[in-house]
Amino acid sequence: MKALIIAGGEFSPEVAMKTLEEGSFDRIIAIDNGLSYLHNLKITPTHIVGDFDTVSQELLKEYQEESKVKIVTLCPEKDATDTEVAVDLAVEEGCKSIFILGATGGRFDHTLANLHMLYKLLCQGIQAYLIDKNNKIYLIKESITLLANEVKSTYVSLLPFTEEVTEVTLLGFKYPLTNYHLTQGTSIGVSNEIIEAKAQILFDKGVLIVVESKDT
Amino acid sequence: MKALIIAGGEFSPEVAMKTLEEGSFDRIIAIDNGLSYLHNLKITPTHIVGDFDTVSQELLKEYQEESKVKIVTLCPEKDATDTEVAVDLAVEEGCKSIFILGATGGRFDHTLANLHMLYKLLCQGIQAYLIDKNNKIYLIKESITLLANEVKSTYVSLLPFTEEVTEVTLLGFKYPLTNYHLTQGTSIGVSNEIIEAKAQILFDKGVLIVVESKDT
Repeated sequence: MKALIIAGGEFSPEVAMKTLEEGSFDRIIAIDNGLSYLHNLKITPTHIVGDFDTVSQELLKEYQEESKVKIVTLCPEKDATDTEVAVDLAVEEGCKSIFILGATGGRFDHTLANLHMLYKLLCQGIQAYLIDKNNKIYLIKESITLLANEVKSTYVSLLPFTEEVTEVTLLGFKYPLTNYHLTQGTSIGVSNEIIEAKAQILFDKGVLIVVESKDT
Repeated sequence: MKALIIAGGEFSPEVAMKTLEEGSFDRIIAIDNGLSYLHNLKITPTHIVGDFDTVSQELLKEYQEESKVKIVTLCPEKDATDTEVAVDLAVEEGCKSIFILGATGGRFDHTLANLHMLYKLLCQGIQAYLIDKNNKIYLIKESITLLANEVKSTYVSLLPFTEEVTEVTLLGFKYPLTNYHLTQGTSIGVSNEIIEAKAQILFDKGVLIVVESKDT
């Protein structure tokens, strides 16, 4: 099962449409003003989550009258962020793959908290992605293979999430690495490029942040 | 000694003027197109660094004729990023405090690499800050006191940079914590607010990311 979550941060309609075209989503969850973004794209969510301080009451009412859309109202002073509640909902519904739009930009503490949320999900066996017009951000705790025709970005950057990532080997990249001990504070993994049909990110221990990015 | 570095990313003239007014900078270093930002503000840098692929040659020439400005030309294919070279220059000149503007936004791999650079600097005993219109981002490895009248932002968020930060105690904050064991994947430290004249962030081991932020 796959979920698409639309948070209320910086939003690109082009990126949203592309993500919707490429994936077949079982759940589409709008968070607060994320609902207006979806409304403009004529996409009906399966769930709406929020304390509804940023979305128009009139718009919300349209969906309250539509019985197929589930609405989860949160209290404004709460321990979890709206995005965490939406993610928990996707997990409860059985989603193992979660794409989150509108969750980067603006306040860096929010973006970082969302990056940490990816880690919490990874520990639960759920692969999640933060996507915006420049970036596709995800964490990995195991080696992966990337197919050049599936990576739409110019650059693939690797940064350590944990204090160290051991035995990093990159194959099929412009700047290869062999058994490299990657530690916090180094930028050697930034701005690499895939140059073969298949590229491999191999490592032993640790968690890597992968950023597929492009300049705009 | 204090340095101000202007990188070529997202730039706010208001934030730059405010930073310049509040601090007395011994070195002002423009990176590539950061020069045009400074030029528009009628501020002359002490140094200009870059491979000069994004700044106009005409503008650069104006400064080449000005003998007081040192120009460091980099080769486009290099191991260190332009920002790292500018930071190294500030460190060589003896600066112990470095404020970096235009180093966030857009490509998240660049922003993350800059966050890791803050860590490298912290290990060298140098306190550095990434500043943009929503955020002042820095790392700490020791307890600190914040004065409410010096923090210009609404929120103060704390996230772990290392895998754990032990015995976190927050005093003078809206949401206090006592001897809290902060680990990666938790967002409990996000969106706190200072409510007393002095606020203290106390902890035992680890490195914390502090983000003073505001919505715009």
